[in-house]
Amino acid sequence: MSLPKIETCFSPSLLHLYDIRQSIVVIIDVFRATSTIAAALHNGAREIIPIDSVDKCIELGHAIPHSITAGERDGKVAPGLQYGNSPLEYAPDFIAGKTLLLTTTNGTRLLHMCSEANEIITGSFLNLGAVCSYLRSQNKNVLLACASWKDRYNLEDSLFAGAVYDAIGGQFEMNCDSTRAAARLYRLAKDDLYGFIQDSSHFLRLAKFGLQYDMEYCCKVDGHNILVTYENGRLLGKPVS
Amino acid sequence: MSLPKIETCFSPSLLHLYDIRQSIVVIIDVFRATSTIAAALHNGAREIIPIDSVDKCIELGHAIPHSITAGERDGKVAPGLQYGNSPLEYAPDFIAGKTLLLTTTNGTRLLHMCSEANEIITGSFLNLGAVCSYLRSQNKNVLLACASWKDRYNLEDSLFAGAVYDAIGGQFEMNCDSTRAAARLYRLAKDDLYGFIQDSSHFLRLAKFGLQYDMEYCCKVDGHNILVTYENGRLLGKPVS
Repeated sequence: MSLPKIETCFSPSLLHLYDIRQSIVVIIDVFRATSTIAAALHNGAREIIPIDSVDKCIELGHAIPHSITAGERDGKVAPGLQYGNSPLEYAPDFIAGKTLLLTTTNGTRLLHMCSEANEIITGSFLNLGAVCSYLRSQNKNVLLACASWKDRYNLEDSLFAGAVYDAIGGQFEMNCDSTRAAARLYRLAKDDLYGFIQDSSHFLRLAKFGLQYDMEYCCKVDGHNILVTYENGRLLGKPVS
Repeated sequence: MSLPKIETCFSPSLLHLYDIRQSIVVIIDVFRATSTIAAALHNGAREIIPIDSVDKCIELGHAIPHSITAGERDGKVAPGLQYGNSPLEYAPDFIAGKTLLLTTTNGTRLLHMCSEANEIITGSFLNLGAVCSYLRSQNKNVLLACASWKDRYNLEDSLFAGAVYDAIGGQFEMNCDSTRAAARLYRLAKDDLYGFIQDSSHFLRLAKFGLQYDMEYCCKVDGHNILVTYENGRLLGKPVS
């Protein structure tokens, strides 16, 4: 029996090279959309609706009861929204039972680009274990899709792809240099993920806004270990089986 | 005084993200176009004309005296052409004084995509030293442009980008995760470049055609240490100053 295939896409601009209709696509936006998503759902959010524009986010915020509008543009809270894109903003006593309406620069855009995927889940170091157990159980092709930064390759998303491959690669067929590079880089980084990531564009950009602790938090493996699936326009949290 | 900038583009599909008009673009197609180009020019070819189609290559072959048509599609000699895309085919007694008309899957295509660049040179391990001395002397922005494989990231081209950064990065401003990743990978690989590269898609593809020795040859640092510039549609060799 042939094994399912695992591949890594480094940028939304390369997505056309992969057959997502036959794959589980793992959306990866470590700094910070998919980390925030894992944290909010793990802390009890009812659901998260990823939205592509700030205006639509505000509009839905008026229409949906018990909802919170949140998101960023270029790393900062977008004007008109109530909250930002930090996993630290969504503590259980604040987010439990609520609907989070989230719009971000890279992550939500990639999510919408992948609408034809066989299945979509989201991944971050905060829920690495859940992502790996789920993929291991499904026996389907996998595309690790990095949200990147405005279509430019970024280090933190590829490190997460490498972490997934490092954990479960043996159960897949792999002939993809992006995955090979990601795995090599992850093995260099894994003993001090936060230290390694400090030499990256995104870290330097967000550090200017004083967000170092946010990024350190995003490097906590399994800190919010919940499976996140995307179904009918909604991100839902499911306990790890 | 601010330093010039150095960046790496992992795929022709990402080229639109970079401002090539202000940069020296280094076209990188290690397996094998830019290695073949360095070998042929170092061995005395008069010039190389990169051509995007096999038909046009054949047509020009009839029109230009002392010319040789050469190239590959999908790693094999393209039907109708006289020679392939191997640096080993162009020994001095065969190529000296001749015009090589070359068409390849990835490298020549990227070269044509970069026509608006401030300046174009080509790079491979065979002429790494010449590329580095030239870039060091110019004090201009640099884009290390990987030809990749049909737009997919490949390991060997990014390793070359990493080798350039490893050698001369200190003279540039760098805030580009592709360059950081390439440099990290190169430092992992440099003690046994050929060994490292054997775990890559392109190696596995070409090894099926028995081209291992070709690829080992392409890993010989400074084996054909000549500067290659692209001017008015022609690739020309210039001795390293």
